[in-house]
Amino acid sequence: MRASELPHITADLLTRVRERAPRVHCVTNAVAQTFTANVLLAAGAIPSMTISADEIGAFVARADAVLINLGTFDAERRDATATALEVASEEGVPWVLDPVFIDRSEPRGAYAKSLLAHKPRAIRLNRPEFLALSGQEPDGGTLMKFALDTLSIVALTGSVDIVADGAGHVALENGHPLMARVTAMGCAASALAGAFLAVEGDALKATAAALLAFGVAGEVAGSEARGPGSLAIGIVDALYALDADTLAQKARVR
Amino acid sequence: MRASELPHITADLLTRVRERAPRVHCVTNAVAQTFTANVLLAAGAIPSMTISADEIGAFVARADAVLINLGTFDAERRDATATALEVASEEGVPWVLDPVFIDRSEPRGAYAKSLLAHKPRAIRLNRPEFLALSGQEPDGGTLMKFALDTLSIVALTGSVDIVADGAGHVALENGHPLMARVTAMGCAASALAGAFLAVEGDALKATAAALLAFGVAGEVAGSEARGPGSLAIGIVDALYALDADTLAQKARVR
Amino acid sequence: MRASELPHITADLLTRVRERAPRVHCVTNAVAQTFTANVLLAAGAIPSMTISADEIGAFVARADAVLINLGTFDAERRDATATALEVASEEGVPWVLDPVFIDRSEPRGAYAKSLLAHKPRAIRLNRPEFLALSGQEPDGGTLMKFALDTLSIVALTGSVDIVADGAGHVALENGHPLMARVTAMGCAASALAGAFLAVEGDALKATAAALLAFGVAGEVAGSEARGPGSLAIGIVDALYALDADTLAQKARVR
Repeated sequence: MRASELPHITADLLTRVRERAPRVHCVTNAVAQTFTANVLLAAGAIPSMTISADEIGAFVARADAVLINLGTFDAERRDATATALEVASEEGVPWVLDPVFIDRSEPRGAYAKSLLAHKPRAIRLNRPEFLALSGQEPDGGTLMKFALDTLSIVALTGSVDIVADGAGHVALENGHPLMARVTAMGCAASALAGAFLAVEGDALKATAAALLAFGVAGEVAGSEARGPGSLAIGIVDALYALDADTLAQKARVR
Repeated sequence: MRASELPHITADLLTRVRERAPRVHCVTNAVAQTFTANVLLAAGAIPSMTISADEIGAFVARADAVLINLGTFDAERRDATATALEVASEEGVPWVLDPVFIDRSEPRGAYAKSLLAHKPRAIRLNRPEFLALSGQEPDGGTLMKFALDTLSIVALTGSVDIVADGAGHVALENGHPLMARVTAMGCAASALAGAFLAVEGDALKATAAALLAFGVAGEVAGSEARGPGSLAIGIVDALYALDADTLAQKARVR
Repeated sequence: MRASELPHITADLLTRVRERAPRVHCVTNAVAQTFTANVLLAAGAIPSMTISADEIGAFVARADAVLINLGTFDAERRDATATALEVASEEGVPWVLDPVFIDRSEPRGAYAKSLLAHKPRAIRLNRPEFLALSGQEPDGGTLMKFALDTLSIVALTGSVDIVADGAGHVALENGHPLMARVTAMGCAASALAGAFLAVEGDALKATAAALLAFGVAGEVAGSEARGPGSLAIGIVDALYALDADTLAQKARVR
């Protein structure tokens, strides 16, 4: 994939998500659930969120992608995650790991490392989380190395997003500073990566496209927002309305 | 009740809700809690949401209506539901069943069926949920039959809402397509039905009026929304401001 | 502190929060989590919300303030609270008690009383909650007496907010009636008090300043809101944009 192709690829995958309405089952933290569900719905996907051990297997078996977000790290969610990943593996459902705040709590960090054996299709995280997970400062080289070691796409988000596989990486410069002032933005971006992975087998394309769509939507929303409250509403609206022209005009990919 | 009377009835019941501020205790899913609470507050009702076994009995005993929503199906909520329904039965508090996603998980479906014995005053669901609960495709006839069998009001929501008792049904054509792109819309509508049941003993009138108020508010919001984010905010504003004139002008009931 | 100084103090503390980005760990109810996190982020603080017994100690040890909100009163949160308060005491982290709905449930009230022994730096509550906690109707005198007994700041919110220590009290007349129609407003105000306590050792100043900032932001938002939906968004925007001039112009403190 060349960086210049990404806006077009993103528009194409967004169309697929809207047409196929993939089911994305999210084991995510309580703070992020509502916003994550609304971002998925705005993009055209169908969220589900149960963490009940009695039924998560049934939900995952019928899902097209799974998100495992560690932002609420309780026994119930760990049990749910074990079942979800077992069923996802059996059924070949792609899954995304979002190791929220693993730099703040050692047990959470150890748990995140243990999940790597279950081969996430993509891992989305920020700088301190990458440092906690890999032991290295993130840059193009360390991200590619970690992607190779884990056989996952590694998507680092920040003022610039970098998405890497073992062979290369793209940098995405879209987004808006207010996005850092709204809770669950990263969590929702990870869920959106799940929706794109559900409709595209090339995981680098899918993950980079999801982050580009989210970043451009954030930029559109940020240009009109009066603060983080209206930004959060605006990004849902912008994602719903996002089209190929806007992506082509606004994308800054290299 | 004649269909043509419903806008007037709805305005009247909305006034009662605003004056009496009924307490609606909600056992509902984590994704829906905040939006549901805000919809109830916008309408003039007072929400409470605890699912702690230690105290749910005290909350239900002082509530004017109860909502049981199955969107998060965990052991804690099942325990809370058992206590809530026992106390509701003792105290004569009306309750609404919202059997979210029972088509996606067999244990959830079996559980929903078991709750019918506790005589919900109203059941709000969508097409696949009705099919899972009753074994039949929904239409005016099967809804009336199911209402007769369960001694409940059956409220099917979709592009057209149908509200039935054992003797008849009304169809409500309000609403907006963007409502399907926001999480917890149906959950909030079910909670609103609880608020209306708290102030009106005729359960058909109360349930149909709640869905009409919600549908008209959604239509008002949808006419100005830029996407699902602003729709969700706008429906709360519109419900707060809803008046008899708007209901009379916009209602499409047959 | 003279009442006339409070707008200036508030602007100063808001600048400190924005510069230092204090970490506020919140044990709070599920309904309030997202809005609370967004209010803290809008003000410049960094929220965390885990209630997992395995790791709450690590979060609290690195936090600059803690909020204990009783709005969801379950065994998991009680366990989390015990650990959180033990670590907060060891590390000297200030904490705020928000005894939500203790007038509605006796076990919750008894639990709130037991927490007073852990010396909250501030207690924010409404009239029925103060009555349940102290056994007295709130007024300047009973608030001061209770503040003296508990060695806490007592912040009563309502149409007028009163913030008292054992020696005096200030009354804040800002805010907007629509704030009572949005869930978790009080919960978010309590969390904001935590953020201000993290940057100011004088607990009366910090608590009063947080409530003034929140009240003025609510008033700014309320002047433009179309209902409670847009009020909730607007208050986040207004808090983010709040400056010394707006505080000086709009504050009504006596």
